[in-house]
Amino acid sequence: MADDEEARLMGLKDVYKGVFIPKAGIVDAACLVEFYEKEFLRLGGEIRFGVKAENLIIEPYEPLGIPDEPYFWQESRIAGVKTDKGVIKARKTILAAGAWIPQFLDALGIECFIKPKKRQIFCIPAKNEALKKLLFTKEFNSAGCLPFTILPNYQILIRPFPDEEVFWLGYADEFPRAFKLEEDPQPEKNFYQYAIYQVLVKYFPQFKDCRPTSAFAGLYGINTLDGQPIIFEEKDLIVVGGASGSGIMKADAIGRIAAALYNSEEYALLYGDRKFKVSDLSLKNRRVEQEKLII
Amino acid sequence: MADDEEARLMGLKDVYKGVFIPKAGIVDAACLVEFYEKEFLRLGGEIRFGVKAENLIIEPYEPLGIPDEPYFWQESRIAGVKTDKGVIKARKTILAAGAWIPQFLDALGIECFIKPKKRQIFCIPAKNEALKKLLFTKEFNSAGCLPFTILPNYQILIRPFPDEEVFWLGYADEFPRAFKLEEDPQPEKNFYQYAIYQVLVKYFPQFKDCRPTSAFAGLYGINTLDGQPIIFEEKDLIVVGGASGSGIMKADAIGRIAAALYNSEEYALLYGDRKFKVSDLSLKNRRVEQEKLII
Repeated sequence: MADDEEARLMGLKDVYKGVFIPKAGIVDAACLVEFYEKEFLRLGGEIRFGVKAENLIIEPYEPLGIPDEPYFWQESRIAGVKTDKGVIKARKTILAAGAWIPQFLDALGIECFIKPKKRQIFCIPAKNEALKKLLFTKEFNSAGCLPFTILPNYQILIRPFPDEEVFWLGYADEFPRAFKLEEDPQPEKNFYQYAIYQVLVKYFPQFKDCRPTSAFAGLYGINTLDGQPIIFEEKDLIVVGGASGSGIMKADAIGRIAAALYNSEEYALLYGDRKFKVSDLSLKNRRVEQEKLII
Repeated sequence: MADDEEARLMGLKDVYKGVFIPKAGIVDAACLVEFYEKEFLRLGGEIRFGVKAENLIIEPYEPLGIPDEPYFWQESRIAGVKTDKGVIKARKTILAAGAWIPQFLDALGIECFIKPKKRQIFCIPAKNEALKKLLFTKEFNSAGCLPFTILPNYQILIRPFPDEEVFWLGYADEFPRAFKLEEDPQPEKNFYQYAIYQVLVKYFPQFKDCRPTSAFAGLYGINTLDGQPIIFEEKDLIVVGGASGSGIMKADAIGRIAAALYNSEEYALLYGDRKFKVSDLSLKNRRVEQEKLII
């Protein structure tokens, strides 16, 4: 990169070393969600699609019928959720609304250290010979496919989809990307053109002049304390979120820990019989390290 | 209180013991602010009233003139503030916007752990004999005036104004008081009538049937981590706030620490020549205890 003035200006460095992790697979998100849906229904769960949760219901244990109750001298709790299709009451309510969690909790004055942030993915089809060769490289694994790749310096991610002959490209930008709740976040053409593309093409010239054919945007629920999931209970409300983008990777563990909290168990049993102390992901007795792989 | 069914329902307890602190004075806020204003002008400072700060200006160190810059590969900084009366550029910008701080910082994706919360004060004139006697009690001090009083159990505050023959009453309610930025927060009649009054009158029957003649509301900038002030610098922006309601009590110390940070000094010299490590109130190397007196 030293000879390339643009690269120098962008602070890009030569690749000193590549690390390939054969055990690091790729998750099929749709397949995973379908599995959980089926299991949930099998266990007797009920799913209602197209229902908008409007706000959580606060109730005093001993309602007195005075206006605007509860007041501070009344012990009170979360008693369920008000939706656009009616009220659902519950002994325990679980709030797992992703990037929308702080909106629900701010209304109750409960801090959760989660903030929403837009993230974007751009799709480039492997149209030309150079990109095809990159996508179906046989040098890394028996699948004959480029592994999920993270570029050095700026952690741009390249997620290959060999079945669809396409690459997904993304970058989790920090300053000055706003914390902001958007109902319909949109991908930004300039973010590909002037941000991702400029770095990408220096390391993989195969992408030269290639433009995305599609793109999408969504919201991360960023845990601004340490990037790890947040699982705690307060006033009969169980809050589950803040996985900062790696929620689907951690979904199995998060679900088991939330279930253990619901059942007032001290430890959750994770996959592989590993014990996990439920309070380690709480807010009051939190005991986790900073998440370092946020992409 | 044991014989009083209402009090029992409200969880009120008898006063076990009263603690009087002769050295704990009352601050005249207007007087304090006037002093700082005069000192600031004397030092050559310039104050512009009626100017609305709209947002902070982000600039790359090496602007390239591309749309929507800076991008993540451009090193960038806060270069000043955009106001409704024009742009003010600065080498260092100090953001001390109280409850509005998170609004400015969320737009840049900078976390500060400050959230706005409404607080209310209700003013009761000492009209009847019982209240006059309470206000001008001679039992505590040479001023012949009720001290600033905090009730037990629920920390309702009573702030006497002997000159104006009035009491101020307030309570910093938590759950479910929302974190919410309101441009023009309003006091709630019900909050006095059903919340403060109900508790107050059990301990001080002198207030029986007395209603506020005026009231006002404002916003606290609550530090949800530990309630202590937050003073840190990031990208040429110095953030000063989050004193959670006791900002005016700590203003002198906060100002000195912020000035030391501005001057890149490791320690600030507080009143009485006490040294204070500037980074102890930062976010990255924070080292403070939880604030326990938030009223």
